[in-house]
Amino acid sequence: MPSNEDPQLLLTALKWNSEGLVPAIVQEVESGEVLMMAWMDQSALRKTLEVGQTHSYSRSRRSLWHKGATSGHVQVVESIRVDCDADVLLVKVRQQGGACHESYHSCFFRRVNEAGALEVVETPIFDAGTVYAQDREPSRGNGPVPGVS
Amino acid sequence: MPSNEDPQLLLTALKWNSEGLVPAIVQEVESGEVLMMAWMDQSALRKTLEVGQTHSYSRSRRSLWHKGATSGHVQVVESIRVDCDADVLLVKVRQQGGACHESYHSCFFRRVNEAGALEVVETPIFDAGTVYAQDREPSRGNGPVPGVS
Repeated sequence: MPSNEDPQLLLTALKWNSEGLVPAIVQEVESGEVLMMAWMDQSALRKTLEVGQTHSYSRSRRSLWHKGATSGHVQVVESIRVDCDADVLLVKVRQQGGACHESYHSCFFRRVNEAGALEVVETPIFDAGTVYAQDREPSRGNGPVPGVS
Repeated sequence: MPSNEDPQLLLTALKWNSEGLVPAIVQEVESGEVLMMAWMDQSALRKTLEVGQTHSYSRSRRSLWHKGATSGHVQVVESIRVDCDADVLLVKVRQQGGACHESYHSCFFRRVNEAGALEVVETPIFDAGTVYAQDREPSRGNGPVPGVS
């Protein structure tokens, strides 16, 4: 979406929950892999559209969160879909680095096994200690979501 | 997961929200398409594991909801993944018919276009009027989730 477009139409169409949030499922374009689920408030969605990288609302920190601000592992947004009830977003992205702060490509790196236990089924792709120890310049983003189409 | 296994291990590992729910992202195995997001309470997750088809908690009806009970469009569960925070499920399924009650294969049939408006980008795959008018026997399911692997 070009930054000169007003996202008010989209913000109004969505059904925000009692906390003013909607869940945003983040899916990798190339692989189809579901990477994570985040929560967005209006401000996070505006910022996502404006910058072209996922921003979400951190419920634990109660603040805007730019995915990759510390790690550099940003998610460049290709398109956004909305479900039938207009209360869930599906954000398709190109992931740089890993989506998960626990060093994995996807946050869904554990599978329920036959005993009903959680089993790690992925391999870490980076060293979290190194990545999160870095000081980084605030990301300038890649510009507006290209066409959100 | 065989029905003789106790899912208590999984139920305890999950972080249920203040309403006793977790979001469950439903993804089609074959296509990788994200079909919908539902909410599960402990009862819905137990039933999903036991029957091998997705069951969820309907917040509007405040009751257990067997996806496909009316339409026949059930979702046969192949595996379940859990995210790093243990508060979101990713359920991989084989979808019979369409996932969306609005006649689409996926609930995410609308895309945010360049004007910021919601644009339908999928084609309906069934006639909702016919499908939901049918009386159906309560589904007996396909048995326990095979190995939840």
